Amino acid sequence: MADAHSLDALTDALRRLPGVGAKSAARMAYHLLQHDRAGALQLSVALSHAVEQVQHCELCHTFTEQRVCSTCLDPARDRSQLCVVETPADQAALERTGAYRGLFFVLMGKLSPLDNIGPHDIGLQKLFDRLGGVHLAVPDMVFPPVQEVILATNFTAEGEATAHVIAQALRDSGLQVTRLSRGVPVGSELEYVDLGTIAHALVDRRNTLG
Amino acid sequence: MADAHSLDALTDALRRLPGVGAKSAARMAYHLLQHDRAGALQLSVALSHAVEQVQHCELCHTFTEQRVCSTCLDPARDRSQLCVVETPADQAALERTGAYRGLFFVLMGKLSPLDNIGPHDIGLQKLFDRLGGVHLAVPDMVFPPVQEVILATNFTAEGEATAHVIAQALRDSGLQVTRLSRGVPVGSELEYVDLGTIAHALVDRRNTLG
Repeated sequence: MADAHSLDALTDALRRLPGVGAKSAARMAYHLLQHDRAGALQLSVALSHAVEQVQHCELCHTFTEQRVCSTCLDPARDRSQLCVVETPADQAALERTGAYRGLFFVLMGKLSPLDNIGPHDIGLQKLFDRLGGVHLAVPDMVFPPVQEVILATNFTAEGEATAHVIAQALRDSGLQVTRLSRGVPVGSELEYVDLGTIAHALVDRRNTLG
Repeated sequence: MADAHSLDALTDALRRLPGVGAKSAARMAYHLLQHDRAGALQLSVALSHAVEQVQHCELCHTFTEQRVCSTCLDPARDRSQLCVVETPADQAALERTGAYRGLFFVLMGKLSPLDNIGPHDIGLQKLFDRLGGVHLAVPDMVFPPVQEVILATNFTAEGEATAHVIAQALRDSGLQVTRLSRGVPVGSELEYVDLGTIAHALVDRRNTLG
């Protein structure tokens, strides 16, 4: 395929997708050109359109095409609660539970010293500014100071470190700062749950009589 | 993310890539928009450019940007041999061995009755036309009738069926029709080779004294 430079360029570009190596990229390029040229053009347009349109919500930092996302603007949401997550995918998972009616703040990352990602890179200052309350001019809308910050970063080393740093920074703020509970997943059998999880479930055990 | 339609459109478009499900597509879209917008634009351009430029070689059917690919035009290649493969990736694998100096014919598929893919869909008539020889006007170049057809389709059910159909069609053509040998992979220990392969290696055993 020495004389199909645009095919090589396509394969190289596909390799920039996360989790796609040389063989997968070649297979994708082959599939698109042989079986789905319409899909290739659709993807091309979707990519340039998304890069052009998608920005960050001024309040919660998630992806949106507006200045402020529809979740933040929703008057039915409880503005006294702010749930801090790492990514829009985590936010979507919480939304799907239907168990949360407060607002979000999306870090768009997590602290990761090994990758040189510090507090500045994940917009912690933006989070702290948000906590004090915001007044939007257009549309005219007031977001009072937050009363509870729910830390819902992942239960990985980086996610725990991120939650810890935020909690420490808010130690003297007078805010209620909570963390999602650790414990045994619903539907699982103790025999197959890892020991660390069982240990945490023991430490965080709750009084069932109320 | 209810108000980022272009993000949803991008996620949908990414799902058209082979092997990419809903979660992978969402992760790819997130990665591109958060960490690699330059990569997203590069991929967008590469896709539209490839769809526009890449066509099939008139002689061997592989991907090329010219009418006839550089492999077919290479005067150093043995034009009496034609190796039939399923995809450009298979062709590339054979090329990397450095053990073949003849020409190729790329089926761009394989017979697959379950998927409704018959002889017409993989261009078998084009292959049979090619075997009789071709005279290119520009550049002025003669491809004499082929003397040996080497069937190098995959050793899967569909690849074997494809090889069988081609071999049967060429039964009375007077051409030499060969198939890549089946056998024990180089470097492997018999203990770990599957029984079907060992059985084939026994049937196809060769005389080491020449």
